[in-house]
Amino acid sequence: MRIPYSELLDTLTAVLLRRGFAPARAALCAKLFAETTCDGVYSHGLNRFPRFLRMIENGSIDIHAEPGLASSAGALERWNGRRGPGNLNAHAAMARALTLAASHGIGCVALSNTNHWMRGGSYGWQAADAGCIGICWTNTMPNLPPWGGTRPTLGNNPLVLAVPRAAGHVVLDMAMSQFSYGALDSYRRRGQLLPVDGGFDAAGQLTRDPAAIEQTQRLLPAGFWKGSGLALLLDLIAASLAQGQATHQILPDPELETGLSQIFLALASGGTQPIADQIVASLGDGIRYPGQQVLQTRTENLANGVPVDPALWTQLSSS
Amino acid sequence: MRIPYSELLDTLTAVLLRRGFAPARAALCAKLFAETTCDGVYSHGLNRFPRFLRMIENGSIDIHAEPGLASSAGALERWNGRRGPGNLNAHAAMARALTLAASHGIGCVALSNTNHWMRGGSYGWQAADAGCIGICWTNTMPNLPPWGGTRPTLGNNPLVLAVPRAAGHVVLDMAMSQFSYGALDSYRRRGQLLPVDGGFDAAGQLTRDPAAIEQTQRLLPAGFWKGSGLALLLDLIAASLAQGQATHQILPDPELETGLSQIFLALASGGTQPIADQIVASLGDGIRYPGQQVLQTRTENLANGVPVDPALWTQLSSS
Repeated sequence: MRIPYSELLDTLTAVLLRRGFAPARAALCAKLFAETTCDGVYSHGLNRFPRFLRMIENGSIDIHAEPGLASSAGALERWNGRRGPGNLNAHAAMARALTLAASHGIGCVALSNTNHWMRGGSYGWQAADAGCIGICWTNTMPNLPPWGGTRPTLGNNPLVLAVPRAAGHVVLDMAMSQFSYGALDSYRRRGQLLPVDGGFDAAGQLTRDPAAIEQTQRLLPAGFWKGSGLALLLDLIAASLAQGQATHQILPDPELETGLSQIFLALASGGTQPIADQIVASLGDGIRYPGQQVLQTRTENLANGVPVDPALWTQLSSS
Repeated sequence: MRIPYSELLDTLTAVLLRRGFAPARAALCAKLFAETTCDGVYSHGLNRFPRFLRMIENGSIDIHAEPGLASSAGALERWNGRRGPGNLNAHAAMARALTLAASHGIGCVALSNTNHWMRGGSYGWQAADAGCIGICWTNTMPNLPPWGGTRPTLGNNPLVLAVPRAAGHVVLDMAMSQFSYGALDSYRRRGQLLPVDGGFDAAGQLTRDPAAIEQTQRLLPAGFWKGSGLALLLDLIAASLAQGQATHQILPDPELETGLSQIFLALASGGTQPIADQIVASLGDGIRYPGQQVLQTRTENLANGVPVDPALWTQLSSS
């Protein structure tokens, strides 16, 4: 089932207004959810919206809370997210980093006490749309065993890097696990094996069977020891700079996962550069760049309507 | 064969002085090489020194060139490395980023027209020793096929992240390929297979055979599409911000690889933090953190002497 983008946006906005969001915040929060679905990142758009509503109900998210400045060192600021909606907090933090970059060439906001930012790539697109290079990452609840371990003591800590380009921004949005739980779910439902090993089975062997990995919860870090090390460093830097919670302090329950630490960096690149086009062209024929598929899907969904789950859509429209 | 650290340092300094280095630059350049060997990163210390000398002889490296400020936007500066020695340029760039961070909370130096920085981790340790978080990366000549391609159009673009800690800095120094050519060489010489797939064989199949990968030169990006995407973004950001060469413009010959672009970020973290110790402790028993092995090796080599190749040592001492 496909619906026009504007209808998706209006419906989500209306739901948030009925929940008590201030009008401007309802509009932006709905826009971030709707854009995510429109861009084809279905797991973190509309399909994640019911959980977002439940986390408002269970008190994890305070819909009225806005981030507050905790301290400033010039181009580096620390903000307290006060457990507001994660996507609004993240958007405000990247906006502030962009303002700092306009004055100092570079700006960094370290955000504590926030909630899941939904699609991390949104804040990369935000920076690139402003003509800046954007780099941001978040920690998460413990959900990834370090290389050499069996207990999930690391987060899969998504990392986003974005470079502005007139022909289409290059935006990489990657978690530190080779596959997300959402990806495992999709492969299992389609009855497919993963294209490469994605974790360990009950016998402790690497496997491409998504169900076996869901059972052990032993996801594989991307690049084995490399993704494991990178996940650790991202948590260390986020928690240290934000003076916020580290992964090991975050409740390991997706519906209670709150108090996250995030980093937002913006760098003035002088806008879109021919150099970026040359680099993308140098990859060779048939090699896609990160963000290319997003732009294609966005164009298609804006033209033909955005795919939504009919049951979910009916439920939301009347909620 | 083991020699005292001070003898290694003095010998390298003497060689550089005989080559015409200014005294202070000879001392720092030798120190960076000697520390790398002392820390156990043998591939990029003394063992890389003969190639460094050859690249002075072939004109790739100008021993007298010092980096010059090209432009400033406050906390973000662009410097021209003028093809000076890569480790001296990188050390100067991180020192400048640290100075900027002292004023602005964060500092970034984008360096163009430089040479191979040898061990990237050196500049992470440098930042952490100054009580700052350090992030830096370099592009390289084309040596890594993108995921889905067979031609090496990406660089393996090493990335360094460092967090200061009183009990031992956490320093991650990772290239974007799952294994470096140096690592493939070591496994092949020992007659061992790689612990995980490291690239493609002549039939286009993933393999753990180091010799087969050396033959095809089709290294595997760490995390498949993830390392491929990250390598691209690191090149895009480095070349764009530095206004320098991108990977596709760098001569694909290790002895002529020059004109690199690099990024150095320093962030004031308030010095070493208990939070970092808590995070490292949370990993669980037996899980090593990045940098732990380096510190152990450093301690051993300082106590027992630094291992050197006898033939290389004899040759250098008389050169």
